[in-house]
Parts: sequence; C-alpha cells; structure tokens
Amino acid sequence: MRLSARNQLPARITAINGGQATANVEMDAGGVRLVASITVEAVRELDLEVGDMVTAVIKASDVIVAKED
Amino acid sequence: MRLSARNQLPARITAINGGQATANVEMDAGGVRLVASITVEAVRELDLEVGDMVTAVIKASDVIVAKED
Amino acid sequence: MRLSARNQLPARITAINGGQATANVEMDAGGVRLVASITVEAVRELDLEVGDMVTAVIKASDVIVAKED
Amino acid sequence: MRLSARNQLPARITAINGGQATANVEMDAGGVRLVASITVEAVRELDLEVGDMVTAVIKASDVIVAKED
Amino acid sequence: MRLSARNQLPARITAINGGQATANVEMDAGGVRLVASITVEAVRELDLEVGDMVTAVIKASDVIVAKED
Amino acid sequence: MRLSARNQLPARITAINGGQATANVEMDAGGVRLVASITVEAVRELDLEVGDMVTAVIKASDVIVAKED
Repeated sequence: MRLSARNQLPARITAINGGQATANVEMDAGGVRLVASITVEAVRELDLEVGDMVTAVIKASDVIVAKED
Repeated sequence: MRLSARNQLPARITAINGGQATANVEMDAGGVRLVASITVEAVRELDLEVGDMVTAVIKASDVIVAKED
Repeated sequence: MRLSARNQLPARITAINGGQATANVEMDAGGVRLVASITVEAVRELDLEVGDMVTAVIKASDVIVAKED
Repeated sequence: MRLSARNQLPARITAINGGQATANVEMDAGGVRLVASITVEAVRELDLEVGDMVTAVIKASDVIVAKED
Repeated sequence: MRLSARNQLPARITAINGGQATANVEMDAGGVRLVASITVEAVRELDLEVGDMVTAVIKASDVIVAKED
Repeated sequence: MRLSARNQLPARITAINGGQATANVEMDAGGVRLVASITVEAVRELDLEVGDMVTAVIKASDVIVAKED
C-alpha cells in the first residue's frame, strides 16, 4: 500500500503514555524525538509496544516551516 | 518562543515548487525527505529559499503511526 | 502495513483536478462524495487515475461531528 | 449554515468512549465505521448520545489517499 | 447545526486569492487577520466574496500554543 | 523565529483542563473564546498557567469557512 502522505519517517517507539481516550506515542527517528497522539484503540489494534519499528506518517499540509530571524 | 507542537525537525530546504496559492517546500532532515505544503504568502514573508536552514514543526495530533504486518 | 488512522473508507476516484502544487481528488465511497486535497507529486507517484479503487484515510482527530439543532 | 469542508458523511453514533479531556465518538456511516476524537466539552454541549444521527465533517486537506501496489 | 469544533470566530472576508485547486481566503476577525486555505470548489459553492460575513471554524486539536521565553 | 502558519492570535489562558494524555487549554482572544487540545507534556514544558499571555497558532489549511444560508 502506498500513501499520498509525503512525510514518512522510520522510527522506533521509545515510550507510550496512554490516557483513557488518547495515547502519546514517543518515537526516535534517527536521533530526533517524535510524538504521535493517537487513539488508545489504535495502540491496542496495532499492538504497539516500546521497541517496535514503525513509520511516522504526516501529510504535507500538516507541516509548518519555522525560520530563525 | 516555545511551541506546544511536539515535533520539531531541523531541516534544509532542497526545493520550492510553488503554484498560485500553495507551495510545496521540500526539505532534507538528516537524510529523510520532508515536504510541507504552505501558502505562497508564507514563502514570500519568511523569504524561504533553497539552502535555508529551517525547522519542520508538526503537532502530535497530526502524526499517524504505521506498522508492518 | 496497518495504520493508526481510524477512518479508512474504500472509494473509487471519479475526478482529479490538479493545479501546480495541489490536486483535488474526488472519490465516490458507496454513494457518498469525498474530496482529498493532496500534492500533485502524490498523484504522480501513486499514478492515481479516474476509476482507481483507493482508500480514503483520515485520522480520528481530524473528524468534526455536526448535529442538527 | 454551509461549510467549506468538502467531506460530509451522514452517520449514526454507535459508541462514545470518553476520557477526561478527549472522547472518541464511534459512528456508522452506511456500513463504514468512523471515529472522531473530539473534546469532552463538545460531547456535552452537543448532547451527543448513542443513536444520534449526525454528520461527520472532514476538510479535504485532511484526507490521505492510499492505493494498493 | 452545531459543530463539535470548539473555535468559531466571526470574520469578514477581505480578499480571496485563488489558484487552480486551492484558494486562500483572507479574513478580518475583530482586527486580527485570518487566512483559510480551502478548495476553489468551496469558494464557488458557498459563493464566497469579499465583504461576506462568515465564521472561521477550527478544531481544538489544530491549535498550537506558543509562549514567549 | 517566524512561522509559515498564517493565523496567530494573541490570547490569555483562562483555564486548563488536563487528562492523562491531552489537555484542553481555554483562551480568550479579544473576547473570542479559543480552545487548544495539546499534550499534557506541552503544558508542563511550556509551564502554561491560567493568566499567561500566549499566541494561538493555526495553519491556514486547518481553517474551515462557514457561511449562513
């Protein structure tokens, strides 16, 4: 399956902090820390665990560019 | 200024493909290709150019996790 | 590959209206019309064409609920 | 009121799983399962309940297209 | 119709800059400038014109908080 | 630091309702109520408190336009 989403970063899960509805999945992508807020249902269904190799997928329209003055 | 957005990736602009309303800004983040779709106004106001060092900013709620079967 | 995104609708592409940076991909999902605004690069790389069977993927945090008064 | 958001799917609420800040509202849209992550405040103010007929509203820029290889 | 989206700002359209697929709609909300990137189809169907009174609708999960150091 | 995000509203925090993973930050922007759903980690790291002056940042592609019939 290929995705129209232009940003796909290989990453390893380093922590999962779950609430009742949402979980924050922390990842390491080649030294850069990433965080994904997803449903707890998704954590369960994908059987996400610390150490898993995953891909962080982000749509191009969700990326903001910041530039130092 | 600090941002609540949890994902902030240092990157270098490698290409800017602009239309009339939207521009796709391509970046290299330590070997990973990123693309941001932003307004042409933002490209102009931030004076974005190929070679610029920038930060790709993404909210945690915009990150999808994908896992191989 | 499994995705954390909770909304995955099977659909058929009915039209692609492309600009220079963005394309609007119209789909039919069992009688409901869907539209996805994606990069023209994604249209090209996925070789999207009218008639293609695809899946419209949407993160749960991007869905608004509307209710009649 | 008309919305610029291009995706509007009639649906019936099948479950509401609320945490302290966020609730996941599950819906059935003509046989397709949808999930919306919204604030618990919105659930309360719209008085959302299982069985309610609602509309799932999604902006075109939030829809990803996936295609099988 | 009521929306789960928590941010609803009354505004007046001050400019519409359309491309082939996307249009940037500029608004004034009580002195604050807003910009919405929407499909050209939405501009046409809602018959949006400079001077129109509209509401800018934004989901709470799409709002980033920035704080000065 | 300048941001490509076109919507930046000065606001004062009026309430913070935190769950385990997500917090809803309520703000007043010149009389208009805003709500941001962000991670509890961001609340902690930015040391957000009621009364703080902040900026609500929203990407143009996340703004929906609504118009009365």
